[in-house]
Amino acid sequence: MAKGKVKIVEVGLRDGLQNESTVLSTHQRFELLEKLIAAGTKTFEVGAFVSPKWVPQMAVSKELTDLVLKKYPDQKKFHSSVLVPNEVGLKGAMETGIKEIAIFASSSETFSQKNINCSIEESFQRFEPIMKIAKKNKIKVRGYLSVCFGCPFEGDVPEKKVVELAKRLYKMGCYEISIGDTIGVATVNQVDSLFKKLKKVIPITKLAGHFHDTRGQALANILEAYKVGVRVFDSSIGGLGGCPYAKGATGNVATEDVVYMFNGMDVNTGLDIDKLCAINRWLEPQMNHALSSRVGKVGVLKV
Amino acid sequence: MAKGKVKIVEVGLRDGLQNESTVLSTHQRFELLEKLIAAGTKTFEVGAFVSPKWVPQMAVSKELTDLVLKKYPDQKKFHSSVLVPNEVGLKGAMETGIKEIAIFASSSETFSQKNINCSIEESFQRFEPIMKIAKKNKIKVRGYLSVCFGCPFEGDVPEKKVVELAKRLYKMGCYEISIGDTIGVATVNQVDSLFKKLKKVIPITKLAGHFHDTRGQALANILEAYKVGVRVFDSSIGGLGGCPYAKGATGNVATEDVVYMFNGMDVNTGLDIDKLCAINRWLEPQMNHALSSRVGKVGVLKV
Repeated sequence: MAKGKVKIVEVGLRDGLQNESTVLSTHQRFELLEKLIAAGTKTFEVGAFVSPKWVPQMAVSKELTDLVLKKYPDQKKFHSSVLVPNEVGLKGAMETGIKEIAIFASSSETFSQKNINCSIEESFQRFEPIMKIAKKNKIKVRGYLSVCFGCPFEGDVPEKKVVELAKRLYKMGCYEISIGDTIGVATVNQVDSLFKKLKKVIPITKLAGHFHDTRGQALANILEAYKVGVRVFDSSIGGLGGCPYAKGATGNVATEDVVYMFNGMDVNTGLDIDKLCAINRWLEPQMNHALSSRVGKVGVLKV
Repeated sequence: MAKGKVKIVEVGLRDGLQNESTVLSTHQRFELLEKLIAAGTKTFEVGAFVSPKWVPQMAVSKELTDLVLKKYPDQKKFHSSVLVPNEVGLKGAMETGIKEIAIFASSSETFSQKNINCSIEESFQRFEPIMKIAKKNKIKVRGYLSVCFGCPFEGDVPEKKVVELAKRLYKMGCYEISIGDTIGVATVNQVDSLFKKLKKVIPITKLAGHFHDTRGQALANILEAYKVGVRVFDSSIGGLGGCPYAKGATGNVATEDVVYMFNGMDVNTGLDIDKLCAINRWLEPQMNHALSSRVGKVGVLKV
């Protein structure tokens, strides 16, 4: 395999924490982010500008984003991003001066209804004003597409549907589309097949892989996606997060585990694995449960 | 990817249990084996004929093997095997009428000394009478080669050394050589490189991959080995086992996780994943700790 380079998008502070029962303070989150940045993290989600009534875990997002942008104002170097569900969220995010947001759509109708209480079509309608305002204000928009490999309510999700929606997100101006295996059901052949179809209609450099490790398949799937040409992957420090559709299950693939794999492939992530493992050890006691990362537990071999 | 077929060697009852602190009774082990067979398992380790003073976990191996061979006497259909370290062990195994044994060597000198208290050369000398008696008695011998991707004491292990020792095991009559990542450090490029070198001197059909999931890399490594042509993999139900060199770490890759991956690749393992998951749920309370398998925890998606 040729030497390469990938971009790791750290989603632990948003997609990770959002699915944890322990609530970290703004201070704890900021400390975590500082440690991640010291370990080489350049691209990260800070939080979500959603109603604290619906997602109490994200209530401190505004406060945290303010802190982050004060300490790391150079957004061309440190790529902070927040999730916004609608115009209200966008306006809240804009008050912080953040230059990147993320929007999210579902590839299954039932998941869309259950997750964001509207149809897929309605969600895309909500994106229109968001994209317009974002464009006007030079705010980059990342698009998440969820349950691309299987839906907890509908089961199989047609590839055609995923490709159509991903293309729509791209055409409406998303600079990157993150293809999500939200419930960790994807398998290698699915990954191979879907990304090959996606890259016919969207430049592969604009696609990201977002794999959950619910069934332990995330690294194999990332390896396969890498072989198809994907060079951007979302991951979560320590494997923070969980799966609301499978109690006790693990969440996002752990950043440490992904970096271990890429290090072994001579693929540069820009991240320091020893520092990531140290973050894991610092973070675990604060989360009140064992983190799911495997590399984080044992570190790299030292003799 | 073309449709294919792999052989899964269930090592939970030996390599798995050997590294567990909970001691299952003969009856529990037999029940486990019966459930595994009902799930499609055809090839499995029953135990080890080692001194119970050194490995108390394996003390019931004779009793268990007797039970297994009484219930499943057709060894051409149900491939029972036991590990033997020396002639004494072999003689004990032969008393049961078992037609397959396994021997084990290390690819690192220090690991050999610490693990079996002799040099690599001395271990091969011990194999000579074993191979002779086995051949005379039409007993098949499988060879394990440990720490092929890294040693907890020496660190890097030269590929050349691994290839030389694997070849030696093959030449002396082992029908299959299991290439072990005993401490779960292997990465994809290592797997690719080592198996490509191995298959130049040993037919690929005679090689097996034995991956531990200590750093979560096992499935990615199995995927890579499969792509190089390896079609035999060792795994352990529930991910039974651990790593004596990394406290609290996971052991062998879990059979359920491997089967999930291969199912998704249209590669036939002959195993029923729902039954494997049911075994996991039955087994977990008996082990007094959470099993490390991820698929076992959540099962396959049912809608």
